[in-house]
Amino acid sequence: MLALADEQGRVRARRRRATEPSGDAERDLARIVGDVRDLLAAERVEAGALRAAGVAAPGPLDRERGAVCGPPNLPGWDDVPLRAVLARELGVPVHLENDANAAALAEWRFGAGRGARDLVYLTMSTGVGGGLVLGGRLQRGASGNAGELGHVPVEWDGEPCACGQRGCLEAYAGGAAWTRRLRERAPDAGRVAALAGGRDAVTPEHLVAAAREGDGFALRELERWNGFVARAITGLVYALDPQVVILGTIAAAAGEELCLGPVRERVRAGLWPGFARDLRVVPAALGPALPELAGVCVALEAEEALD
Amino acid sequence: MLALADEQGRVRARRRRATEPSGDAERDLARIVGDVRDLLAAERVEAGALRAAGVAAPGPLDRERGAVCGPPNLPGWDDVPLRAVLARELGVPVHLENDANAAALAEWRFGAGRGARDLVYLTMSTGVGGGLVLGGRLQRGASGNAGELGHVPVEWDGEPCACGQRGCLEAYAGGAAWTRRLRERAPDAGRVAALAGGRDAVTPEHLVAAAREGDGFALRELERWNGFVARAITGLVYALDPQVVILGTIAAAAGEELCLGPVRERVRAGLWPGFARDLRVVPAALGPALPELAGVCVALEAEEALD
Repeated sequence: MLALADEQGRVRARRRRATEPSGDAERDLARIVGDVRDLLAAERVEAGALRAAGVAAPGPLDRERGAVCGPPNLPGWDDVPLRAVLARELGVPVHLENDANAAALAEWRFGAGRGARDLVYLTMSTGVGGGLVLGGRLQRGASGNAGELGHVPVEWDGEPCACGQRGCLEAYAGGAAWTRRLRERAPDAGRVAALAGGRDAVTPEHLVAAAREGDGFALRELERWNGFVARAITGLVYALDPQVVILGTIAAAAGEELCLGPVRERVRAGLWPGFARDLRVVPAALGPALPELAGVCVALEAEEALD
Repeated sequence: MLALADEQGRVRARRRRATEPSGDAERDLARIVGDVRDLLAAERVEAGALRAAGVAAPGPLDRERGAVCGPPNLPGWDDVPLRAVLARELGVPVHLENDANAAALAEWRFGAGRGARDLVYLTMSTGVGGGLVLGGRLQRGASGNAGELGHVPVEWDGEPCACGQRGCLEAYAGGAAWTRRLRERAPDAGRVAALAGGRDAVTPEHLVAAAREGDGFALRELERWNGFVARAITGLVYALDPQVVILGTIAAAAGEELCLGPVRERVRAGLWPGFARDLRVVPAALGPALPELAGVCVALEAEEALD
């Protein structure tokens, strides 16, 4: 996803293209640079007229070196100095941020978190990602890895997680972990398996669809999932005391009745009254505009910090 | 504890007095104001010559109103507008912060966290308190309650906590909860009970003393305690990515071999390599100077924010 925006973040033009990594980072990079050049040419903008470029990339990143370090879904991107390559090709300052942090920035600037000083953004897709805006600034931390909210604990000695620990939120609420569980547990003759065309094809989307129809297994599984998400959120609220908690992806798709409402209620019930008075627990608001605004917001944030 | 300090935070004079609340906030307040006047008179300082006063008080506080709202250990202080009373009596701006946040500020400015941009301060005494300095500023949050690190989860559906939830860190690592457990579990004829002069008198201090002598029960209990503390810390590090985690009270008293070393090792083992490289897990450094510096740092922080 590419977007050309002005200094207020208004998108002037965009290019969509599925990521489809080739397995060869050099080739992928050349395609990205080519797409940027095409977009600029179509808009009759010289690369030299750009103020900056912002990139929202899947982590882990090496922030100091501006490198992408082997994200699970980008084969061949094992240690790619993306920032330096793009800066050389485009001749402008390039800013790199992990995608969940960039999404938090975008929701803060243009979405569900507008006006908040302190914001927790939590998104459950394949894994669990997150981003924190605290005191009106993105929390990056010592190594740029802050916001990895999938590894807060929710169960002692619980399910194993890809990080090597046990009981992490991601091992319960992440899409991959949840999909594995559902394929093991969904009743063979149940509604969830029927919607998926077989138990081995079940995904959280089928579960949400079956829950909408009132299926008992689906409702119980969603309730359990909401419980883990809510428990992680109360811990984060006690720690950070944000004005708003924004939930993306699975929670936003499941919607108010099945997920957001129950999670909000559980969170409020778990907090001291002093916290709960004004706390908002809301779905991400940007929807399909998120990917283009994420990169734009990385550039805006970085350039404003330099001003 | 009262301290008179200059604008660099150098303490020029102090008064120590045990808190000993009378049960009547008016009377306690009058005594505090009297002690302040005595200290100023002895130092030949006019109240009007002060720039500001900082107060580190036990929470919960109502930050907007500068009020102390019924801390468990201050009977009679149910809704006391401490800030307004002191400001009227002293004729200077008064800044109020909860004691754990104030301690985090003091350790950041003068103690184990000097030079860190991002710091987690976690202290286990009766309960579990904490404070966060993020991006070089105290994280207060929407309602001023940020830093309540005792309520991050460590076990699903675990021990009940005073906050109404289950499985909170405080319900395992807080001194009160741990003391209850030890009194139920310490072997009647064991070393821990012997040191305490009876099982019903056991405290974490006796456990630490017995662990120093190599007592098996004490070592196993400490290992369990270290595990919960470390698991909560890894969650906070994934979320906040601090340069330093500072442990106070029980952990600092138990020391390097019994607590800090094992906790540090467990935390490092649970983190992605990108985090662990530079992370420091260290004991609080200010010791008995902490109470006086906590109030001083509240005033310094608030006045610098106004500059």
